[in-house]
Amino acid sequence: MPAPHKPVEIREFAEPDLPTGGALLRTAFSEVCGTDVHLWHGRLSGVPYPIIPGHVTTGTLDKARGPLADVTGAPLREGDRLAFFDVHRTCGRCLACTVHRTPTRCPSRRVYGITDSATEGLFGGWSQKVYLEPGVIVAKLPDAVTFESYIGGGCGLLTSVHIIDRARITMGDTVVVQGAGAVGMSTAALARRAGAGQVIVIGAPADRLALSRDMGADAVIDIEKTTPEERLESVLALTGGIGADVVVEAAGSPRAFEEGVRLARNGGAYVIAGHYTNAGDSTINAHEHINRKHLDIRGCWGSESAHFLRALRLLERYGGEVPWARIGARTYGLRDINDALGAAAELSIPKALVDPWR
Amino acid sequence: MPAPHKPVEIREFAEPDLPTGGALLRTAFSEVCGTDVHLWHGRLSGVPYPIIPGHVTTGTLDKARGPLADVTGAPLREGDRLAFFDVHRTCGRCLACTVHRTPTRCPSRRVYGITDSATEGLFGGWSQKVYLEPGVIVAKLPDAVTFESYIGGGCGLLTSVHIIDRARITMGDTVVVQGAGAVGMSTAALARRAGAGQVIVIGAPADRLALSRDMGADAVIDIEKTTPEERLESVLALTGGIGADVVVEAAGSPRAFEEGVRLARNGGAYVIAGHYTNAGDSTINAHEHINRKHLDIRGCWGSESAHFLRALRLLERYGGEVPWARIGARTYGLRDINDALGAAAELSIPKALVDPWR
Amino acid sequence: MPAPHKPVEIREFAEPDLPTGGALLRTAFSEVCGTDVHLWHGRLSGVPYPIIPGHVTTGTLDKARGPLADVTGAPLREGDRLAFFDVHRTCGRCLACTVHRTPTRCPSRRVYGITDSATEGLFGGWSQKVYLEPGVIVAKLPDAVTFESYIGGGCGLLTSVHIIDRARITMGDTVVVQGAGAVGMSTAALARRAGAGQVIVIGAPADRLALSRDMGADAVIDIEKTTPEERLESVLALTGGIGADVVVEAAGSPRAFEEGVRLARNGGAYVIAGHYTNAGDSTINAHEHINRKHLDIRGCWGSESAHFLRALRLLERYGGEVPWARIGARTYGLRDINDALGAAAELSIPKALVDPWR
Amino acid sequence: MPAPHKPVEIREFAEPDLPTGGALLRTAFSEVCGTDVHLWHGRLSGVPYPIIPGHVTTGTLDKARGPLADVTGAPLREGDRLAFFDVHRTCGRCLACTVHRTPTRCPSRRVYGITDSATEGLFGGWSQKVYLEPGVIVAKLPDAVTFESYIGGGCGLLTSVHIIDRARITMGDTVVVQGAGAVGMSTAALARRAGAGQVIVIGAPADRLALSRDMGADAVIDIEKTTPEERLESVLALTGGIGADVVVEAAGSPRAFEEGVRLARNGGAYVIAGHYTNAGDSTINAHEHINRKHLDIRGCWGSESAHFLRALRLLERYGGEVPWARIGARTYGLRDINDALGAAAELSIPKALVDPWR
Repeated sequence: MPAPHKPVEIREFAEPDLPTGGALLRTAFSEVCGTDVHLWHGRLSGVPYPIIPGHVTTGTLDKARGPLADVTGAPLREGDRLAFFDVHRTCGRCLACTVHRTPTRCPSRRVYGITDSATEGLFGGWSQKVYLEPGVIVAKLPDAVTFESYIGGGCGLLTSVHIIDRARITMGDTVVVQGAGAVGMSTAALARRAGAGQVIVIGAPADRLALSRDMGADAVIDIEKTTPEERLESVLALTGGIGADVVVEAAGSPRAFEEGVRLARNGGAYVIAGHYTNAGDSTINAHEHINRKHLDIRGCWGSESAHFLRALRLLERYGGEVPWARIGARTYGLRDINDALGAAAELSIPKALVDPWR
Repeated sequence: MPAPHKPVEIREFAEPDLPTGGALLRTAFSEVCGTDVHLWHGRLSGVPYPIIPGHVTTGTLDKARGPLADVTGAPLREGDRLAFFDVHRTCGRCLACTVHRTPTRCPSRRVYGITDSATEGLFGGWSQKVYLEPGVIVAKLPDAVTFESYIGGGCGLLTSVHIIDRARITMGDTVVVQGAGAVGMSTAALARRAGAGQVIVIGAPADRLALSRDMGADAVIDIEKTTPEERLESVLALTGGIGADVVVEAAGSPRAFEEGVRLARNGGAYVIAGHYTNAGDSTINAHEHINRKHLDIRGCWGSESAHFLRALRLLERYGGEVPWARIGARTYGLRDINDALGAAAELSIPKALVDPWR
Repeated sequence: MPAPHKPVEIREFAEPDLPTGGALLRTAFSEVCGTDVHLWHGRLSGVPYPIIPGHVTTGTLDKARGPLADVTGAPLREGDRLAFFDVHRTCGRCLACTVHRTPTRCPSRRVYGITDSATEGLFGGWSQKVYLEPGVIVAKLPDAVTFESYIGGGCGLLTSVHIIDRARITMGDTVVVQGAGAVGMSTAALARRAGAGQVIVIGAPADRLALSRDMGADAVIDIEKTTPEERLESVLALTGGIGADVVVEAAGSPRAFEEGVRLARNGGAYVIAGHYTNAGDSTINAHEHINRKHLDIRGCWGSESAHFLRALRLLERYGGEVPWARIGARTYGLRDINDALGAAAELSIPKALVDPWR
Repeated sequence: MPAPHKPVEIREFAEPDLPTGGALLRTAFSEVCGTDVHLWHGRLSGVPYPIIPGHVTTGTLDKARGPLADVTGAPLREGDRLAFFDVHRTCGRCLACTVHRTPTRCPSRRVYGITDSATEGLFGGWSQKVYLEPGVIVAKLPDAVTFESYIGGGCGLLTSVHIIDRARITMGDTVVVQGAGAVGMSTAALARRAGAGQVIVIGAPADRLALSRDMGADAVIDIEKTTPEERLESVLALTGGIGADVVVEAAGSPRAFEEGVRLARNGGAYVIAGHYTNAGDSTINAHEHINRKHLDIRGCWGSESAHFLRALRLLERYGGEVPWARIGARTYGLRDINDALGAAAELSIPKALVDPWR
């Protein structure tokens, strides 16, 4: 991706010399997610174009210089099926990492495919090989987890593991998820498995709502066929007039925020997790929606390595019953990558996969 | 108070027949707080006018029918100096009280001087005697606590005990308090004693800021002499460019909410506690102020009996060093009560006291 | 039950005159739980014998004096299938209820079938009718919940809802449950549905372990066929050498406590919930097992009305997949009640039910 | 310290060649703490003797190779008064660091003066110069903090910052601290400043109890002049018969653990922080002391860099009113170091300081 609003081009890079502890991944799949569309539209600041997009990626270990191990110290061998945590260089020393315990706000943090420049090397998954620099957190895919289900979950799954942490669901809670994209669907799947008594997904279009049901939603509300008032009435009807215990915003729209504070019950919780770019302002009444409601609103930014590692366990645990692979609706080669971006931008499919060898 | 926007009148009531467990308090002081101004302006819905205002009140036990005890079972005797929790009839059985653990949202909850009608009896402190119905939580004032310091703290102190619970201060945190009224000043006092490394009060006018310093603020910012940008710069300068760990909104203004989300640091906390009536909407950017900031926003409504009981201990502990009595700037008799309301409405003094025997 | 160590006798009581708000339940089932055995063995202090045992009980509303409603205000009608919370008279006013937020330690708290005397009325479920005094928390059984599954869950289910609260499971955690009785099995069932990555039950005999698997355990360890060292090795083997994230003690044995601190990982949590009577001392090394391990140990006593209300929702949600009814292995009439107690004392069945009309 | 039970010897080391990012500290003071006595007695396993003891140390920056900065990025210059976090090489990548969020249990973690060998270099404070390897967390002493007050607080202060985190004090709580050593005294000081309503220190001898009072204790109990029953009675008398809200064990004795579970109230919390070596087993009754009591017991191991950084802020904030410098009762030169160890072993003084230039 040479620059915003320009077509993505295919470029050839020399295979890098690996430093000790470095490795090379042979890509099986990367993905096109909403962030890639934002990158293409130039809506993220500070991006060092040109970049190789593709932050969440999976494949096999091509080669490593020196012994490579996962976080438990288990050795990794060439040919192993791998995933890696796209967020790297989190320093572990700054105030954000230590005193504030918010490593996702570490100023040194860099992300494959987003804040790493192509001028520095193969730091993105829309490439046949990806450079794993020393210190990147790498893990074997559990045997039960296919490449397709890992990448189907993708970055949305990692975000949703973080969301579930922030949501602090009590068994039996009603959870409303605003948004039926990759984040929303994974959140619905996990909320159900975390003990939610009822999971309601608000979104569109119909095929995503159907998939949301298959992921775990008990009820779905089509945002294209309802007014905000009707949706509020539906949620009240499903909760005995009380409202949702937990609402998760995974829609990225200022209107969703305005609506979500109404859907939550008194003393409920609202996790704001969809606003990865600035989509405009919301109008909020502090008295009605926060103060009198005794509401908790919790911003949720990025994910930590703990979320990556736990995502693998959750894929292993629930992969048999949650159809993560179906989120990755269609697979594109590098030659079709601009079509993939177009499809993602139009939201015509939940997620496009990238197979750079196709 | 016969109705909104009408002058408050003095009426005579017969002394009530006490049921078993009921008691009568001889009022020493009640207060005029911001809520009373809202009542007078008709800004609260569902108020059963006529009412006897005065929700937080203190005095001596005039008479009791049957043995009366505090929450520890210690007997109370006629002549004892008492305080009581103005919130009563919280049911302890509904979803709010049990499953949601938000008793301040219990639908049965009633409040002296606000939601109790004068047609039902002496349920308000702007009266020489107050009826303590069976079940009202009553406590002896500790010997070290004067009537003046109890009522100087008043309802603002109870609210601030709740705020401190919600704020979850870590030792060394910078706490910004928006608002230099009774709630803001007590919050500043308690934040300092809860281990805040730095307490900054934003408000006006100058005499309240001076009192805020005496209560415990390390720094004050005059809202009348600064722009929002200047205040943000001041807070950044005082925090090494990071922002406040905790911000408390005790101002009740939509502009304060908009400003507070900017003052908090990444991963910080913001307690919204000043919006007891609807003062209008705020414009909030979910991306900038919540999502990317990984911010926690916590609404804080009313107070629980635990806050009342702990407020008494805190008055005992810190009454020697925190000048709560000075918040109650001037004392009015019942004949001057409309002047008191006027002074409170104009915010010319932090708090007016009511001595109904004057 | 006239006194400890005496056979339980059948006595006739006159049907009580109901006060306003009072009601009479026509018993469908009550249960014989471990507490009843303790009562019979005289191991609980302060029990006002004679008592009518049977604390958790279900049936139909026989009659009510005045309107009767559940906690949401929904009216209850004669013939409705009901459950009620056996813990009553929790005061909502004392330090335990308010400041400490531990209502299970309220000194006024009374429990049907345990701390209520038969001289006061029909306060126990081993009776054809049970008196529901005004203020007892009553709820309709959801349509999907049979009497058998409600009473199969019984008091153990309520305790396990509380345990899950205290356990604060993070998705993917390994949870070890010590004990395969009614509490242990329900805890295993709920831990799985709360997102545990792996549930391991340690207990005996084989049929309970088989039922534990059907309830949700991923692995079981027979305590009669293994040494403590072997069990520790098994748990380490199942957790990559790390130990369990959460251990729940539901065995009531001092040896279980000694073993559990070894099974938990560094920084893990251990909920102690099985010691309802004094079974003797444990030998614990503060350095090895707590300090260096950075372990959290959390006592868990009784249950709150919130746990009762949420248990009903969980039975509704998971009753189709969790065989709670099978915990209630055999049903006894009142004439066989001493056999039921004997069976419970010998632990030959997980739980005996009582059908007083049989 | 060549080996356990041997006298400490003075050895000369060549000044090290500094790698980029490395630095050399000119020691002002180091300390002799209880851990040093344990090292000398050979009670810690895995120590790579010979070692240079002295884990917490302060001094001036002697020289640095390349720019050196603190965690905020502020540059450090030669001559600056510095402190550094003695725990280093915490990896930030393992399960303990990420998923479990217990960096003090990181297997890569090393500690100056304890787990670093003298064969590797100047990794200990009983030395005129200390090698600060790249990655060690370094901070300027605030102007208001003297060397003497920093080292008087020393490692005990860092531990106590962690203890206060684990204790989660609610304003007004009664906090009992078992132990009047460096950890206990700093814990008393911070508990008071964190809002404790009452701080009670149990320990000996009389001069430490007097200093504990000066640090912030409201009451002290001499362990040499009282029986456990008398101490329990005292704590009950000071808490209206209820027991302490929070108990902190900073004594390191198995008897203290047995006593502490009795001193805590129902639903209270007990932080176990003094058992840095194995001093033997405790006898605990799970029913009486944990289960029925609904008690939380929280192990607390080591400290994190966040505790180090916050300790500096707390020294700056409270150094004027808390006499930390007085904990460092006597200062020894390197030639007297065996006397210092002897004095620390006999507990004749709260803490010995080491000035290696004396």
